[in-house]
Formats: sequence, structure tokens, C-alpha cells
Amino acid sequence: MQTVQVQAPSHSYDIVIGKNILNDFNLFAPHIGKKAAIVTNTTVAQWYLQPLVKLLQNNGIDAFSIILPDGEQHKNHESLNHIYDSLLANHADRKTTLIALGGGVIGDTVGYAAATYQRGVPLIQIPTTLLSQVDSSVGGKTAINHPRGKNMIGAFYQPKLVLADLNTLATLPEREFSAGMAEVIKYALLGDVAFLAWLEQHIAAIMQKDHTLLAQMIAHCCQMKADIVAQDETEQGIRAHLNLGHTFGHAIEAQMGYGNWLHGEAVAAGMVMAAELSQQLGYIGSDEIERVKNIIRAAHLPDTPPKFSEEEWLAHMRHDKKVDEGKMRFITLKNLGAAQIETLPDVNVLKNVLSKFTA
Amino acid sequence: MQTVQVQAPSHSYDIVIGKNILNDFNLFAPHIGKKAAIVTNTTVAQWYLQPLVKLLQNNGIDAFSIILPDGEQHKNHESLNHIYDSLLANHADRKTTLIALGGGVIGDTVGYAAATYQRGVPLIQIPTTLLSQVDSSVGGKTAINHPRGKNMIGAFYQPKLVLADLNTLATLPEREFSAGMAEVIKYALLGDVAFLAWLEQHIAAIMQKDHTLLAQMIAHCCQMKADIVAQDETEQGIRAHLNLGHTFGHAIEAQMGYGNWLHGEAVAAGMVMAAELSQQLGYIGSDEIERVKNIIRAAHLPDTPPKFSEEEWLAHMRHDKKVDEGKMRFITLKNLGAAQIETLPDVNVLKNVLSKFTA
Repeated sequence: MQTVQVQAPSHSYDIVIGKNILNDFNLFAPHIGKKAAIVTNTTVAQWYLQPLVKLLQNNGIDAFSIILPDGEQHKNHESLNHIYDSLLANHADRKTTLIALGGGVIGDTVGYAAATYQRGVPLIQIPTTLLSQVDSSVGGKTAINHPRGKNMIGAFYQPKLVLADLNTLATLPEREFSAGMAEVIKYALLGDVAFLAWLEQHIAAIMQKDHTLLAQMIAHCCQMKADIVAQDETEQGIRAHLNLGHTFGHAIEAQMGYGNWLHGEAVAAGMVMAAELSQQLGYIGSDEIERVKNIIRAAHLPDTPPKFSEEEWLAHMRHDKKVDEGKMRFITLKNLGAAQIETLPDVNVLKNVLSKFTA
Repeated sequence: MQTVQVQAPSHSYDIVIGKNILNDFNLFAPHIGKKAAIVTNTTVAQWYLQPLVKLLQNNGIDAFSIILPDGEQHKNHESLNHIYDSLLANHADRKTTLIALGGGVIGDTVGYAAATYQRGVPLIQIPTTLLSQVDSSVGGKTAINHPRGKNMIGAFYQPKLVLADLNTLATLPEREFSAGMAEVIKYALLGDVAFLAWLEQHIAAIMQKDHTLLAQMIAHCCQMKADIVAQDETEQGIRAHLNLGHTFGHAIEAQMGYGNWLHGEAVAAGMVMAAELSQQLGYIGSDEIERVKNIIRAAHLPDTPPKFSEEEWLAHMRHDKKVDEGKMRFITLKNLGAAQIETLPDVNVLKNVLSKFTA
């Protein structure tokens, strides 16, 4: 079992990572009220809901469950209202604990419900995907989508506790496990070349879901994100490094239609493009590009994007919020493990990179 | 012009109180972005919207307005969505300032929209009623109603600036001005007997809206609330004193049907009942009761509640959230200017008070 302590503005909390921790009521006990609502989706419910309800009820908690439909398209106002209605119907008060049991969509939606129900109730996050374990457990971002834009309605709200049980990764489709690995590789590339070497050494065993290595890896990513967020709560500076590969990745997702490429897959190819851009700018060489591609391939992720026209690439990148006011800002790699924010001096630098990925 | 500085958890901000301050762009300048959305209701819009839009536009701000229907029944999800939709249609981003121009309903609804649009945008509150100037400017409570309960969905969110322009009280109906005075009297009774004496001395001129006295009075109330909130952000202790008269008041509002008695009117009669309860408990005598009634009458407020049956009284008070788990908790007056939280030893103490107001 590994524990990462996160310093949030309002309080500090623990991320506990390990096997079978969802069976351990002692982990919940200091953070849970007399009444608790477990919110999950139809997919996750079939594996992990009933044991958790029983664990809590056997320990005297008045626990009830709220089950949402599965999928990003349900990260919306209807799901939110469904949660509010169920909380009110079950007489949930300000001390009722909300437990988010699921991946990023559940974490974001339930986190936002917890932030806003009666102006905020206690929240426990139980991320069940690799992506949500390494990424969304830290930073307190919660949100739902609006028909006009993703994550348009939200709040910063910190949980009391995060429990990342490695058992839940057993039921995760391989493709989604790989997509989570894209974010793990991102942490290595943006800020820790020693962690990159560690990943290269252990990637085969990690892909086989060696529990000891997984726990170390997830804890390391959470610690890195916690350090970055602590330095930059308001997203003005270093926190932008977490967007490595995301400007290109968002263009891939948008052009392919959301859901056809998983977010992590698009970020993986986007990181290769960011590496190519860094080479264009003279920061890294072809050996480093190969190293990036190799670790991405080893995680069963795409090391090249689909081919679009230059116009298509540029159109999507101009819509990206990181390309503000005509200045093209990118996260580039000064070296492997050393990301930086950069405003491109000249759009031709970008066009040279895009020409490699143009139909 | 009077200024009260409020220390909020995230930052400190100023409440500026005075005449014609809505014409002074210098007050806005340090706190407003390039783009601003002024949100108001149909009633307030006819007096104060166009001058404010022009002031901002003349100073280079890209200002646009969002007009909601007037009334507590519109403090709901439809109004919130109307704000979100307008912000998105006008390409509002994270730096766009929301300006809440109106009374408590506008302040609560727009404050909640500001708390949640893109996880929080800058907020300026311009309260235009006495009640919102003395009460809702401080404390950061924002919320909308849910069909199952008032203020069920909300957030704590602090403004960058509060501007209380005394001119706006000129268009306020007398009955609403008096309702605001109930909360002013509440501050005196719960914590400051010298302020009670000051009110008694000046009440006639205040009811004539003497601007110098009004500015002093509003600033004093804001400072008192700021001090109380700073001592007790999480509403566990002293902040409950702000509920003086409210348990009885809520029962009056509920039994009469919401909107038939204004909140401030119900609180005024509720404070008399809280004073009677305090007398029953031996804290104060009939001279103090008379003093409470006199200041309430001088503010053109009811010094006695409607008559209900004992059952009606008790039923509504049991629903009140301050009467939790069968323990009847009230805010009583140890003396004038000295409120305390009290769990009644015996329901008969309460019934003795109710018997005076029973049909």
C-alpha cells in the first residue's frame, strides 16, 4: 500500500493506492459520516457496488446508491439533477458523504454534485480507471459538460480521501489501460527523466499489471501532479505543462469525432507531435524522438496521428483554449523530462511539423 | 463614502457604500476584466442597467447584459441556464467579470453562476435592496432553489468587490426597505447594544433615508457580519447567532405561504418571539421586550406574529433545520446585544411562549 498526501488549499488529504483496499473499512472510517451515497455507473456497479454498500452498511453507515448511465455523453446536467433528486429523496444533509465510484466521468460529475449540494458535502473519490487514478485524483477539478462545450460548468473542490484499488484495473479494458498509460508517460516526459528510465525498464511488467510496480507508478504520478498543482493552483504557469501533447491531441479528437480515439490515444500521438515540434526548435534530436515513440509503442499506444490536411489541423488548434489571441502557445520539451511553455515565433515552425502528418 | 474590508478565505475584498458610486468607473477599474456581463432582473433593469452598461462601454469594457424575470420563484435552474447560455453565446471566458445588479435573488443566482461557470469567474456584487446590502454582501453564500427545497444547490464564493449605492434605495418600495431594517435591528439585538441605542436615536431620520446615517448603518452591519463570518466560516458556532428570530420567522413564512409576509417582516415578529422566549428563561424582563418591540414598530415592522394553533407552530419549527434530531435549538438573548445558542431543556418553555400567539 502506498500513500500520497496532497496539500489542498482548504485541507490536506490522502491518496491511498493498493490491493483490496476497498474492503478495508478502517480507511473510510475517519472520513465518512453516518449517511453516505455511493454514486457509480451501470458498468462499474456490476462489479464493485454491492460489496461496497455491504461494507458500509455492516459498519453502521446508512449507505444508499445512485446509478448513472455509462459514458462521456452522460457527464451532463441530467445526471447531475438525478444525483440531486436522489440525495433529496434520501434526506441527505450537509454531513452526508458522497462517494464517487468510477472513472473520470463519474469523478467529475459526482465531484461537482458534492461541491454544490447544500453548498458542499464531504467527498470520497474511488477512481476505477488508470487514467482517473493518475490524473483526476489530484487538483480538485470537477465539472459537467454543456451542450456548447466540455467542462464548461464546474468548481474546484477537494475530496476528503482518494482510494485507488488496483483490483479495479482487472476489469478495465486493455485499450483503456493503455490510454491511462499515455498520461503516465506524459508525467515522465514533462518533468522526470529518471521516471522515464524506470518506465522503460519496467514497461513489460507494468502492461502485465504487476501490482507492486503499478502502485509505485500511480503514487509517483499523483505525487508529481500534487507538486505541480501546489506550485500553481490557478493554472497560470507550470500547471500548463500537464497539457503536454494536448493541443495536438484535442485536434485529433475533434477531427476524428469524440470517442473514436480515446483521449489517451490522442494525447500519445500528440506527445510525439510535441516532440517533433521540439526537434524543429532545436531542443532535442532524433534519438530522443525515438525514445518517446518507443515507450508509447510499448504501452500499446499510437505513435503517429491520423493524417489530416494542414487546414484541418490549424482550424482545430485555433479553437483550442491554449491558442489564445492568435499567439500559438505550446508545451515543448527543452529536453526529455523538461517541459516548458512556449509561444511560437512563427507559424511556419508549426507547419513544418504538421507537414509530416498531412494527407 | 464608507468602505468595509472583508477577509475571505481566498482573498480580501472591499464593500464600498455611498451615493452615486455606480457612476464612478475608478471603483470598478481594478476589479474588472476586458469583458463583463451585467446580470439583472426586469424591474432593476429599467432604472440602473443602461447607465451602467454605458459607463463600462465608455471605458472600453466589452459589456453586455442578461436580464432575468423578477421574483424568488425565478431563483432556479432555468435562470441559471439562461445565464450560462448567454455567457457562452457571448464567448465569455474565465476572465469575464460577472456583475450581479439587484437584490438577494439576483445576488444568489448570479453569484452561483460566477462560482460555476468555467469553474469560477470574477464577480462584482451590486446589491440594490437594503436587505442585500446589509446581509448577503458578506459571507460568500450563493445558491439557487430546488423544487424540493430553498438554497439546496449552491457554493461558497467570494466577490472581488461589493458596491452598495444608496441611490438604489430610492426606488425600493417602503415595505421592502422596512424588511431590510429587520436584519439591521437583528445585528443590534444579537451583538451590539450600543448600536441598538444609536438606531433608537436615529430611526426616524433613517426611515427618511438620510444618506449619511444609512451609509454608517450599512457599513456597521457589514462589519459585524464580516467579523462573525471570519470567526466561524463553517457555521458551527457564532454564525448561528445570525439566525436570531429565524426559526419563528420561517414558521410564519411557511404557515402564511411564502411571499405573503416578507422575510424581514417574519424575522421582525420572530425576534419578538425570541425575546419572549428569553424572558421565559429569565434572561431579560418586560422593559427589554418593550425596547425590542419599539424599535421594530419604529421601522414600520410587525411586532407580533399572526395567530396559529400550537400544532401549526410546532410542525413548522420541527421542519426547520435548526431544530435537529428532536433537540429544540434556538437563538436566545442573554441580554439585549448578547445572543447565544441554546438547546431548550423542556418543550413546555416553548409552549408557554407560543400560547401568547395561539389562535
